This record gives sequence, structure tokens and C-alpha cells, in this order.
Amino acid sequence: MSYELTPIGLVHSSLKERHGAPRQPWEGAPEVRIEIFPAFRDCAEGIEAGHEVWILTWLHQSDRGAHKVRPRGCMTADLTGVFATRSPDRPNPVGLHRATVLAVGEGALRLEALEAIDGTPVIDIKPVLEGKRQF
Amino acid sequence: MSYELTPIGLVHSSLKERHGAPRQPWEGAPEVRIEIFPAFRDCAEGIEAGHEVWILTWLHQSDRGAHKVRPRGCMTADLTGVFATRSPDRPNPVGLHRATVLAVGEGALRLEALEAIDGTPVIDIKPVLEGKRQF
Repeated sequence: MSYELTPIGLVHSSLKERHGAPRQPWEGAPEVRIEIFPAFRDCAEGIEAGHEVWILTWLHQSDRGAHKVRPRGCMTADLTGVFATRSPDRPNPVGLHRATVLAVGEGALRLEALEAIDGTPVIDIKPVLEGKRQF
Repeated sequence: MSYELTPIGLVHSSLKERHGAPRQPWEGAPEVRIEIFPAFRDCAEGIEAGHEVWILTWLHQSDRGAHKVRPRGCMTADLTGVFATRSPDRPNPVGLHRATVLAVGEGALRLEALEAIDGTPVIDIKPVLEGKRQF
């Protein structure tokens, strides 16, 4: 049993290579532009500048066979299961990025601080919710 | 271009039907058990009781053709793009659930308050990170 994901857009970023890219947005990630493919532009109506969103990506350069990693590549640390880490190498390499919308254009969103590299497929966009905690 | 998702586990819950299920964990969602399939059990090593995790699911009963919805089914509200809502009906119906781990067993996690229905496939598990905000 498996399921098929269809990319709905792409990340356009000054980050061109996975090596050396920041791991988290607060580690120096740049502004990015999210292109939304024409067939899915109506799905983004209602998103406005200032909104906080979750961007879900498909980390297409990942190693899907990785089950255990050393946290942050530390050679002396014990191996840890990938589900206990944010390693991009994992069975289903879905990237989860929280970002602020800076501007909404024709078929595109400009976002503050996102760490996915240029050309990363986008699979979903969701609003951040305020519950007892933030979801 | 599309990508293939492989379920790594399943949600076991007292919620049996999408109709009437809570939409968010703070709206009365029950404790659940996440079964992790044998081939992926090593991926979960390092997860401990008390951890906050993101559970990513595949909302298998969703309508993938939905591009616009009325927020929370309100018949008088304007139609909004699904990316501006948390509707399960969307092109790639990935569910994003934040939960606290109550206990870790053999090939299973017990979680507090998760709103996915019984039998929902799990596609990824990630730790919640504390950055400037929570990711």
C-alpha cells in the first residue's frame, strides 16, 4: 500500500545546495519565493501577508533508506532513530517549515526565512493554528 | 512528476468515523496508540515519554479534488482556498498533529489527544523543536 504525492509548487531560493544549508529557519535561512503551479492557484486564495503558515515540502535529495543517524552529524554521539530527529534522511522525507508570509503575488508567496533549497517541491500549505499551543 | 509515500504505521483510536470527529486536539480528541510497522521500528528509537512530537498522517478518506471550501462548513461564509484552511480535503491530504508521548512500547507509542480516526496511515514522526517559536 502506498500513496502518491503531487507537487503543488516549488521553492525558489538563493540556497542552491543541501551541503552547508541552514538546518532551521533561525539559523540564517533566507527569504524565499514559493511558486504555486497554475492548477493549484485557487487553493491559495485567502492567504495574506502577515499570516503564519506551515510549508510542507518533499526533500527530494534525501536518503529514504536511512533509519538511524548521528544527531547533527556528531561522530561521537550514539545513533538515534530518524523519527527522534529532524534529519532530512528518513523513509518519507516530508519537510515541515514554519514561516511568515511577507507578500502574496500572482501564483506565488514570498516567505521570510525558509531553509529548503532551491527547486524543492512543495506538497501542502496550511495555516498555523493557535490552540493551547501552536499547531 | 509525483512521489510515493509508504506508510510507516497506523493510528489506533476510539474515533471510528470522520463525521463528528474533533477537528483539533483541544476539541476533545482521545488518547491514541500509534502502531509502528516492524520494518520501521528502529526509526523510532530515541523517542521517550514526555516528548512533544509531530505526527504526520495520510488522511485517506479525504477528497483530493477539493480546492476551495467554506471554513468549518459554514454555509454563509465565502469559499476559501484549502491552503488557507486546515480542511482534510486538499490535493495532498497530509495531516499534521502535535501530541505529547505518554508511553513508548514495543513497536508502539501512546499519545495524548490526537484527532485522526482509527486506521489512518502514519507517514512520519518528528520532534517538536524550540526555536524562536515552536517548529
